[in-house]
Amino acid sequence: MEVLFTFLPKTAHQEKLEKEFPDVDFHFTYKEKSRLPSVDILVTYGEDITEEDISKAEKLKWIMVASAGVEKMPLQAMKERGIAVSNVKGIHKTPMAESVLAHLLALKRSLPFIYESQQNNQWNRKTGSSELFGSTALILGPGAIGSEIGRLLQAFGVRTIGCNRSGSAADYMDEMTSFEDILMKLPEADLIISVVPSTKETKHMLKKEHFEAMKKDAIFMNFGRGDLVEDQILLEALENGAVGYAVLDVFEQEPLPPEHPYWSMKNVVISPHASSHSKKYVDRALDIFIPNLHKWLSEDLNPTNLVNLEKGY
Amino acid sequence: MEVLFTFLPKTAHQEKLEKEFPDVDFHFTYKEKSRLPSVDILVTYGEDITEEDISKAEKLKWIMVASAGVEKMPLQAMKERGIAVSNVKGIHKTPMAESVLAHLLALKRSLPFIYESQQNNQWNRKTGSSELFGSTALILGPGAIGSEIGRLLQAFGVRTIGCNRSGSAADYMDEMTSFEDILMKLPEADLIISVVPSTKETKHMLKKEHFEAMKKDAIFMNFGRGDLVEDQILLEALENGAVGYAVLDVFEQEPLPPEHPYWSMKNVVISPHASSHSKKYVDRALDIFIPNLHKWLSEDLNPTNLVNLEKGY
Repeated sequence: MEVLFTFLPKTAHQEKLEKEFPDVDFHFTYKEKSRLPSVDILVTYGEDITEEDISKAEKLKWIMVASAGVEKMPLQAMKERGIAVSNVKGIHKTPMAESVLAHLLALKRSLPFIYESQQNNQWNRKTGSSELFGSTALILGPGAIGSEIGRLLQAFGVRTIGCNRSGSAADYMDEMTSFEDILMKLPEADLIISVVPSTKETKHMLKKEHFEAMKKDAIFMNFGRGDLVEDQILLEALENGAVGYAVLDVFEQEPLPPEHPYWSMKNVVISPHASSHSKKYVDRALDIFIPNLHKWLSEDLNPTNLVNLEKGY
Repeated sequence: MEVLFTFLPKTAHQEKLEKEFPDVDFHFTYKEKSRLPSVDILVTYGEDITEEDISKAEKLKWIMVASAGVEKMPLQAMKERGIAVSNVKGIHKTPMAESVLAHLLALKRSLPFIYESQQNNQWNRKTGSSELFGSTALILGPGAIGSEIGRLLQAFGVRTIGCNRSGSAADYMDEMTSFEDILMKLPEADLIISVVPSTKETKHMLKKEHFEAMKKDAIFMNFGRGDLVEDQILLEALENGAVGYAVLDVFEQEPLPPEHPYWSMKNVVISPHASSHSKKYVDRALDIFIPNLHKWLSEDLNPTNLVNLEKGY
């Protein structure tokens, strides 16, 4: 059994795997794919795998994606070959929810102002701070990550409205609405937080009318995928004051081009698609991969966190 | 009945009081105290009241302090005159707990780095982010504010150790210790958060040995009073790496002098004694004052949140 990693785990992680599976032939490489024809299992962050790679990897039966989004992968080719694809769904929920709360609390408690005052050697107590307490949040995509955000927001006394395709119940949401009815709920929200994946339905889902329906001082956070809203629409909404603030972790084009107006906008925070980063990341990915590999070796070919290649998540 | 405010509430607040108490003679001034000889009740932020003021205010029976700390007030003179002193204990818990969490999450999720990268037009994903989850916090002074901090930390998966004079149980603390035994618990803590008031016991309570007992990457937060630790001791601890980070809302000297080394230290965040600030502050203070004034007018001379002038809090 041959397993190829197209990223380099730390030595400690490599040794852990080799000790746990003495009979497995592990190859740890950095985007080096010459071994593809002989590998049975591929472990990848996803973005480096092309359709050509799939056709070369004749023996490949399982791809473990150490990431959540698979929209950049050749899904059709993988599906035709019957390759099982699993991801690390849920792995991001703690760091991402902490990032969302960090940004919201930082804005409410004036941290950008406090940091800037310190840089300028200024003792300025006019922070204009407000509170998260008593706000209403609309959460697009209350799955594993969205619900964790909801749980934490509720602890801060925030009312949570979840929004998904069907409007069906989700954890830690005081109320639910559907993608179809979102326009009616937007005027109530002080915080609009998206963690939806990129699918046919969510692509460019938010239009001009949605931003016009938001509170003028609302904070819009996109921590899902950059194609939720066209750049031009969000830019105009921020410039004409339809919405107060945007905290963006994802963009239509990544890296965000250096000439983009967002960089210098006072009401935009640019997080460089880093909200899921954590020193605990690879540990957690292995906590998912190791039991799955044990199952696979004992002929159970249904890894947990199987991706539905039709739906794309 | 004459009530003097030595700060200026907004017009809406003034009108609310006058409407609620048509028979009370309100005077709203900004640190103007010529009416002292005739006032029955004084509403103040505390710091502007001297011993001389107390002797002038011959009819004064009740001081409502719209703040939490009374250590700068002439406690002895007030006690001798039998003046009831009440404060707004509890009013700070929401904004202060949100500030503490904002600072902790900002550091764990690399917000200073993210803001700085944006200022420099840099898409830099090497944030080095970690998580609050799984940390251990030692909270000095788990009263109304400290327990609220504990409640929120627990929601983030943080273990909380409370520390007070007696070591007796407090809300939202997984464990307790006493001021006397704190040295034994410091090595376990990733976060050391003080919200203790200034008393004889807490003044300069943290010594060099305490900082030496902390983890080298621990975050120390002083959101109580500046005299908890001598400046020189904290400065040395930060410079020689005994502790990783300090987030300070209070200082031995306030405003912090412009030449102070803290201003330019990379591992110090200076919050200008602003962690309790909130747009909802005066609303909440009146929510405490109004029922107390009703009680007072009906001859119940025991306002809630009475300060023990002996203990000083």
